[in-house]
Amino acid sequence: MRHKIKLFISYDGTDFAGWQRQKGGQTTIQETLEKALSRLFDEEIKVVGSGRTDAGVHAVGQVAHFLTSKNPDRYRLLQAINSLTPSSIAVKEAWAAPEDFHARASATHKVYRYFIHNSPVPTALRARFTTWIRPPLEAEKLNAYARFLVKKQDFKSFQSSGTEVASTVREIYSAEWKWVGPHLLEFTVVGDGFLKQMVRNIVGTQLDLFQNEQPPEEMGRILAATDRREAKTTAPPQGLHLWSVHYPRSLDNKCRKI
Amino acid sequence: MRHKIKLFISYDGTDFAGWQRQKGGQTTIQETLEKALSRLFDEEIKVVGSGRTDAGVHAVGQVAHFLTSKNPDRYRLLQAINSLTPSSIAVKEAWAAPEDFHARASATHKVYRYFIHNSPVPTALRARFTTWIRPPLEAEKLNAYARFLVKKQDFKSFQSSGTEVASTVREIYSAEWKWVGPHLLEFTVVGDGFLKQMVRNIVGTQLDLFQNEQPPEEMGRILAATDRREAKTTAPPQGLHLWSVHYPRSLDNKCRKI
Repeated sequence: MRHKIKLFISYDGTDFAGWQRQKGGQTTIQETLEKALSRLFDEEIKVVGSGRTDAGVHAVGQVAHFLTSKNPDRYRLLQAINSLTPSSIAVKEAWAAPEDFHARASATHKVYRYFIHNSPVPTALRARFTTWIRPPLEAEKLNAYARFLVKKQDFKSFQSSGTEVASTVREIYSAEWKWVGPHLLEFTVVGDGFLKQMVRNIVGTQLDLFQNEQPPEEMGRILAATDRREAKTTAPPQGLHLWSVHYPRSLDNKCRKI
Repeated sequence: MRHKIKLFISYDGTDFAGWQRQKGGQTTIQETLEKALSRLFDEEIKVVGSGRTDAGVHAVGQVAHFLTSKNPDRYRLLQAINSLTPSSIAVKEAWAAPEDFHARASATHKVYRYFIHNSPVPTALRARFTTWIRPPLEAEKLNAYARFLVKKQDFKSFQSSGTEVASTVREIYSAEWKWVGPHLLEFTVVGDGFLKQMVRNIVGTQLDLFQNEQPPEEMGRILAATDRREAKTTAPPQGLHLWSVHYPRSLDNKCRKI
C-alpha cells in the first residue's frame, strides 16, 4: 500500500537555486526535501510541487505531495522532517491525502505577493524579502495598470522563454497594489495558473509604465500584443512570495492532518 | 574644523560577529561602517556606537557618531554610505550633531525587543529574527516575572562575565510580554542602560522559570541575590533587536538632518 502525503511548506528562497531539482549541483528546495524524506522513510522519495519557484523567490504556503510505502502515522512526521531540513525551509503541515490528489494538477488557484521597499534608503531587516525602489510609487496609479490584468486572456506577453506550455491563456481573478507599511508596498495577484516568470514580468512592466508616466491603456496594448518583446523588464526575485495554493473543497475534505 | 555626524543604523546581525571591532578578522558592523566611511571621506574614520550588540543580534535603530575633517554637506551622504555597505546594513538617517553629542555617553535610555516564534513547527521566513520555542508560552505568566524588573536596582545577577563596569545598578522603566502575531511573542524592555547580555539573560531566565512553573517571587529572589549563578540560561541572540536609542531633547534639537 502506498500512502500519499500533502505538505504545506514555507521557505526563504534567498540561498536556493529555486524549487526545481537541477542537474549540476546547485541546491534546490525540492532536492533538499527529497533528501530529508528519503532519509526519514529509508526509501527513495520524489516530491511533486504545485509549481516551480525561481531562484531567490520565497514561499509562505507552497504545497507538495509525495508517495511512501511506509505508514506515516508511525512517524512524528513534522518534527522529523523539520529536524532534517535547514532553518530556511519549514514544513508547517502534513496531511494524509487521497489517491486522486495531485499538488500541481489539482490546484484551482494560487496567490502570489510581491513586496517593494519604497524609500530613499534601503532596509536591512527586510532586504531578503523586498525589492528596493527609491522613487516614490503611487498605489492608485499602479492599480490603473493592474485592472487590465483581471480577466481570462492570453498572457503570452508576460511569459519568459524556456518552458513549453500548451496554452498561454490564464485567468487572473484579482490584482491589487496596497500600502501595508510606512515604506512597504504589496502587490497581490490571484489566478488559476501562472506562466514562467509571469508575476515578475507583470510587476516589472507596471513599475516601468509608472516610471515612464504611461497611460493605463498601455497595459491593455501590451497584453493584446501577445508578444514578450512588448512587455518590460522582469522584476527581481527577492520581492516575490508564493503565498498560497488552493484546491477543490471536495479534495480538501478528504485530507486528514497527521 | 571637525564635523560630528550622528548615524541612525539598522542591521541584520546574523552574519556578523557583533558590533564591536575585533582582533583577528571576523567581520563586525563597526568595522564594516568604518571601512565604508574611511573610503568615502578618504581619511581614517572611527565610529562610536551607543553600545555593543552581540554576534547575531539585530538593530532597528542603533545610533553611532563619527568625526570627519571634510564638509559632510558636500556628499550625498546616505546614498554614498549605503552604496558602500552590504545589504544587511542600512544607514537610515544622518545628522550633523553638536560637539557635545556622544552616541554612548549622551544616551538617556534604550529600547530592546526580543521576538519568540512559539509554535510546534518552525518558521522559515522569520528564522533569522526570532527564537523558536515549541511549548506554548503564556504572556500573562511571563509578565508576572517581568514586573520584578521594573525599578532602579542592582542587576548583577543578569550580567554575563567579561566586561568591567563601575556599577551594576541600572533602572528599568518598563518590561512587558505581548502577543504581536499568531505565533509571535514580543518582549519589550526599556531602561537607562544594560549590562553585558543583560536582556538575553533576563529573557532566558523568565522562560526557564515559566517552563519550571516557578512562582513570580522567584524572579525577585534571583535579582536580590546579585549573583550570576542564581540566574538561568542566556537566550539565543537571533531573537534580540536593539530597537531604539534615546537622547535628551536639548541635544536632539541641536542636530540637523543631512
